[in-house]
Amino acid sequence: MPLVEKPQLLFNQSSLPTDRETFIKKEECYFTVMLCGSSGTGKTTFCNNLFSSLVKSPKSVDNFSKVHKQKEVHIEKTKAIIKEDDFRLNLTVLDTVGFGDFINNKDCWDVITDYLDDQHEKYLLHDQQSLRLQRKDSRVHLCLYFIKPVPYGMLPLDVVAMNKLSKHVNVIPVIAKADSLTKPELDSLKGKINKILQAQNITLFFPSAIYSADEIAKDLSQACPFAIVASKEAVNDENEGKIGRKYPWGTSEIENEDHCDFSKLKNLIINNHMLELIQSTEKVIYERYRQEQLINRKNGIPKLKKAHYERLNEEKARIQKKVEEKSVELENTFKEREEKLAVVRDDLNNELAEYHDKVRILETQLDALRNYKGKNQKK
Amino acid sequence: MPLVEKPQLLFNQSSLPTDRETFIKKEECYFTVMLCGSSGTGKTTFCNNLFSSLVKSPKSVDNFSKVHKQKEVHIEKTKAIIKEDDFRLNLTVLDTVGFGDFINNKDCWDVITDYLDDQHEKYLLHDQQSLRLQRKDSRVHLCLYFIKPVPYGMLPLDVVAMNKLSKHVNVIPVIAKADSLTKPELDSLKGKINKILQAQNITLFFPSAIYSADEIAKDLSQACPFAIVASKEAVNDENEGKIGRKYPWGTSEIENEDHCDFSKLKNLIINNHMLELIQSTEKVIYERYRQEQLINRKNGIPKLKKAHYERLNEEKARIQKKVEEKSVELENTFKEREEKLAVVRDDLNNELAEYHDKVRILETQLDALRNYKGKNQKK
Repeated sequence: MPLVEKPQLLFNQSSLPTDRETFIKKEECYFTVMLCGSSGTGKTTFCNNLFSSLVKSPKSVDNFSKVHKQKEVHIEKTKAIIKEDDFRLNLTVLDTVGFGDFINNKDCWDVITDYLDDQHEKYLLHDQQSLRLQRKDSRVHLCLYFIKPVPYGMLPLDVVAMNKLSKHVNVIPVIAKADSLTKPELDSLKGKINKILQAQNITLFFPSAIYSADEIAKDLSQACPFAIVASKEAVNDENEGKIGRKYPWGTSEIENEDHCDFSKLKNLIINNHMLELIQSTEKVIYERYRQEQLINRKNGIPKLKKAHYERLNEEKARIQKKVEEKSVELENTFKEREEKLAVVRDDLNNELAEYHDKVRILETQLDALRNYKGKNQKK
Repeated sequence: MPLVEKPQLLFNQSSLPTDRETFIKKEECYFTVMLCGSSGTGKTTFCNNLFSSLVKSPKSVDNFSKVHKQKEVHIEKTKAIIKEDDFRLNLTVLDTVGFGDFINNKDCWDVITDYLDDQHEKYLLHDQQSLRLQRKDSRVHLCLYFIKPVPYGMLPLDVVAMNKLSKHVNVIPVIAKADSLTKPELDSLKGKINKILQAQNITLFFPSAIYSADEIAKDLSQACPFAIVASKEAVNDENEGKIGRKYPWGTSEIENEDHCDFSKLKNLIINNHMLELIQSTEKVIYERYRQEQLINRKNGIPKLKKAHYERLNEEKARIQKKVEEKSVELENTFKEREEKLAVVRDDLNNELAEYHDKVRILETQLDALRNYKGKNQKK
């Protein structure tokens, strides 16, 4: 767990309400951010840029091909403690490795929503105990959804996944690798994404005016979805010390507001709205989960997860197969028994015919004897 | 069909072997290029850049969402005639709309390989006719596969699709939107892609040394996969008249060899190797198809296509369902018949028992009579 001391300009606590300041400073703060998007959208680099330190080390190529061999999305957890004066931030960064990278990405968001629900469930179980001290909050407070810079807007996967995720976590959409879009393209793309989000009724996290000045909120609303550029390296030359990407035709700086919205997003997450993200998770999302669970669950058993459904479906298929085999077997047994019965019936019929004959013979004998008796009596 | 007169510097025919020059000039030339890759990789723009004219008009956003509603890849054909002096080039551009855009992209390459085979089949059928004049060549001579600029190399879809396609057409891989990669990233990506292509044994089109100077071939071999930048617009300012993309931090020019490999690729396709692409399609790919077909097909019937397989599978499932229903019905019939047989058996048994009784009674009567007869005879 890397211990990062005094990163530059990390917490501008003056913007937090003053009565909470002392309280917050004393208490440890847990903050979990999830980065969701396909490989190569710059999630890891962005995360390091956001916390101004090497929170997550970049993946090697070998690791990448290993991920693709697994054929399933998995969640990678990185923890770091960030210290500033008395304040300790327990930071967890979750990476959705393999998301959207496969040929078939059907239901690839299930692993993620299951994970999100699991954290709520853990918290809920703790909530129901008599001794509730020292519970650790592993719930996810923010999901940054990385949209690839496709000029047409969002792909079906993005629309469906964002819709599902927004029901389990605060989602903020970001346009990854925005340095591949020109200014007019970026503006047009933002418009299209907002139109799609509105049309699909996807509710995203949005900072309320309570904690932020109206102007800031307006500025943020205009910037959303945030176009970001991420970079591992400080650029030398003229733009000394600044972090950016150096192309043959120029250098894009990540903190330059003319180049991208990174600074705005960083301000939103780190300086102005971290507390609001935590509270929104507690008061809106967790409450919704808790309510739904307590209303719906029977005898305190949590609802089934997708993975369980699949296992049940597999079992169902197995049973169905068994039933089919059994029915074939039964059919054969029936046939055999029918054949046997037919033999029995024929035997019985034969026996009956024999008895018939026997009876006929006996009756003729009887008749003959009766005749004899009649004649004798007459004598 | 747009008629484009004298595009700038289109055919540098001096590089074609001189004995073919007059011949080529007289004959109409058919050239079909397929652009394969997901939406937003800049296929349409690249195509217009390549032929220095508006061959294909950009798709509207409405059209795009319509495509995604169809949930299947389809091939969009655009035709253009390009004239330079006496030379007429009948150009066909095929766009694979929807390729790789869906949540589940399994088998999305089948539509494309089926299309490619269909063209070979058409040509083959014509080849077998007695009158073979004036056949039009609709075969695809080149497929440019657009790889998204992911720093990790290629996604599983790219690897599988390129492997499949390379068996049906000349494939040249290009790195789309290369202006989102810095120079070191691009070099590293090219290395990774070449490594993957080699490891997966994917054979791509490569210009032979026969038609090109050794140096050119070497230069091309180093550049492959070609990093391209596509742009709709001419850039003003300092880079007057040049086509490129204008960012806040600089302008990338598509024909600048420091910025991308567009010029090299254009030279390869248009100036130096178009004839070789056509001949390689005729002599390698079509011959392979023809041979395979003539050896394998029975009674001249072409092999089944994937779509047919699916239809057959559906039918199979339907029949299986029918069989299952029938087996349940049969089972019921068997049960009924067994029950009926049991009744018959019981009736027969009862009848038999009655006869038994009757026989027993008759026998006692008979015995009584016999005794009577015996006594009488003694008298």
